[in-house]
Amino acid sequence: MAKAAEQVIEKIKQSAKDVESKIISRDKPTMRLPIRALNNVKYLPKQGYLQIQSKSKIRTLTVNTIKTFAQSLRMMALSKNLIQTNRHATKREAYYQSKNWAEAMFREQDESDTVMDDIEAMLGVNRERMNFRPEEHGGAVAGSLIVVDRQRRTGKRIEIDCTKFGSGAYTVPSTVEHLQFKTKARFILVIETGGMFDRLLEEDFFEQTNCILISMGGVPSRACRRFIRRLSDEYKLPVYVFTDGDPYGYMNIYRTLKVGSGNAAHLNRYFCVPGAKFLGVTPQDIVDYKLPTHDLKEQDIKRAQDALKNDPFVHHHKQWQAALKQMLKMKKRVEQQAFAKYGLDFVVKQYLPKKLKNPKTFLP
Amino acid sequence: MAKAAEQVIEKIKQSAKDVESKIISRDKPTMRLPIRALNNVKYLPKQGYLQIQSKSKIRTLTVNTIKTFAQSLRMMALSKNLIQTNRHATKREAYYQSKNWAEAMFREQDESDTVMDDIEAMLGVNRERMNFRPEEHGGAVAGSLIVVDRQRRTGKRIEIDCTKFGSGAYTVPSTVEHLQFKTKARFILVIETGGMFDRLLEEDFFEQTNCILISMGGVPSRACRRFIRRLSDEYKLPVYVFTDGDPYGYMNIYRTLKVGSGNAAHLNRYFCVPGAKFLGVTPQDIVDYKLPTHDLKEQDIKRAQDALKNDPFVHHHKQWQAALKQMLKMKKRVEQQAFAKYGLDFVVKQYLPKKLKNPKTFLP
Repeated sequence: MAKAAEQVIEKIKQSAKDVESKIISRDKPTMRLPIRALNNVKYLPKQGYLQIQSKSKIRTLTVNTIKTFAQSLRMMALSKNLIQTNRHATKREAYYQSKNWAEAMFREQDESDTVMDDIEAMLGVNRERMNFRPEEHGGAVAGSLIVVDRQRRTGKRIEIDCTKFGSGAYTVPSTVEHLQFKTKARFILVIETGGMFDRLLEEDFFEQTNCILISMGGVPSRACRRFIRRLSDEYKLPVYVFTDGDPYGYMNIYRTLKVGSGNAAHLNRYFCVPGAKFLGVTPQDIVDYKLPTHDLKEQDIKRAQDALKNDPFVHHHKQWQAALKQMLKMKKRVEQQAFAKYGLDFVVKQYLPKKLKNPKTFLP
Repeated sequence: MAKAAEQVIEKIKQSAKDVESKIISRDKPTMRLPIRALNNVKYLPKQGYLQIQSKSKIRTLTVNTIKTFAQSLRMMALSKNLIQTNRHATKREAYYQSKNWAEAMFREQDESDTVMDDIEAMLGVNRERMNFRPEEHGGAVAGSLIVVDRQRRTGKRIEIDCTKFGSGAYTVPSTVEHLQFKTKARFILVIETGGMFDRLLEEDFFEQTNCILISMGGVPSRACRRFIRRLSDEYKLPVYVFTDGDPYGYMNIYRTLKVGSGNAAHLNRYFCVPGAKFLGVTPQDIVDYKLPTHDLKEQDIKRAQDALKNDPFVHHHKQWQAALKQMLKMKKRVEQQAFAKYGLDFVVKQYLPKKLKNPKTFLP
């Protein structure tokens, strides 16, 4: 078994032993769970992510908590079994497995998801390492990258050449820890929409610039974030992010990719991409390129105001404060495909080359 | 230029010429548009799809319609230009291109999407052949299949071996007409959720059964439907569909895949997969396997009742009427991952092998 897997099993055993020894000595067993919310995080500019702080709740075994307690222990046992048999379970499968746990059965998947999150936070181990995985994949990849995976049945090494997908793409699997990479790319361009990804493929963008293109398809999945993080760490590759110009693209997509989020605060150190920089579309681009826009919706305005008021990442970066304020003043948002006004290839012939000549102007 | 592309250009030219000659002879130009709705379709059991019927509306050039008229002609001109330059535009890019059409500019993408649908129906050509494409990809593929595509820049032939993705998968591109295939698979198993797709990958299902696995990720995209259709046509491969056991899985996913839908009725003949059969999860499976269930939601009940009342496909198939009635009587729905109650590998060790021994029992 890999060393990382043994560490997780060791942590599970230790937690279970703590509970056991308290019971034997007639103490009440407890579990300490960090509070996962934006008011219990701090932005660490040097390390580059939102770090969880010390607020926590203690769950003591009582008549009221006995079911959750039992469920937590069974969930940990399930994880141990998965690791030992080299299997993975989706969150939904974990929920259904509980249907055979007699009184410890979960009634709804919400309950089992919460217990899983609690264990993650308690053990300080992301659930992918406990062999649980999300339902959704996420991320299409094309460009100067070879992904090294293994054949499931035989364990045979296979190399997946991401330049060789024609009009298709490589799909990031739901767990990525076991992958290895080979690349001579100059940078990674991470894109919000599948439409823009297809545009860049069609215009031979990755061949011309020797880069790796990754389409997030909205807010990036954990697997997609981890995939980008590992690539950027291991090859010191710059990561440039290209989203729609709206508060959702800036905060929910870019900020989550770069520094993590509040409700998954205990995991941000694994899933953040601290080196990411924001290429566009910026509010200033709307002015500079006379782009067609839409009015900000009410929720856009609320999201931008919230970010200015409560987001530790925005508090740290004056440039983001300025950008959000400029957007609120203009009352306009813009989509990344708006460049099509000037012709389908404008984005690759004009906009991106001009931006890429000067990455220092990117937003932090 | 390929012959198929020439045909589309010919149709565009002919329509434009009709308009021109009417104008020259001082007649009012018209466009005839078939009505796209479930009350203007008929189920053709032999051909296997919902066929559009003869109801249509005629758009005559008047002061009120002049803008839409102009937009339709410009949209046709855009398509002609895309085909001639071997480019594709997403629906959103088409919308943004109109920002340079002066008074014929679209205000919202809804408007340009509708004009695109109208032209599709009028010319009887699906928009992929007019070089327009959806934003979204759809469909992950793994198994005994080689996809033959071409390198974009060089036109060089490339072969993509879908057995060689390890834990990842091949993503179906947004247009699939240019792809070719090589396969010796015995059947195609089409799956609703990414989670079940991953389960089957992890349990070596495609190696053991020599099949092609396709994950739809919900209602299948047009590209995904067309991909399955072409594979099933060209290799006479049986297509088995495995969804959640609820009216959404039966009607919105399976029925759309097999025979098409009402609001895209003019296109069903391209995008249907008439040979598809429904493997499960059926209402009877809930009983036979004592599966954990959820209560039907109000919208599930409404959807099932609507299907029994209005859906020509259900009207034709007594077995589907019986299945929907059984479900309404039980008031229960089931997810495809519910088999995990009996262990993660139950679905591949017990459920699927037993079903696949007897495809004649599948729902039509």
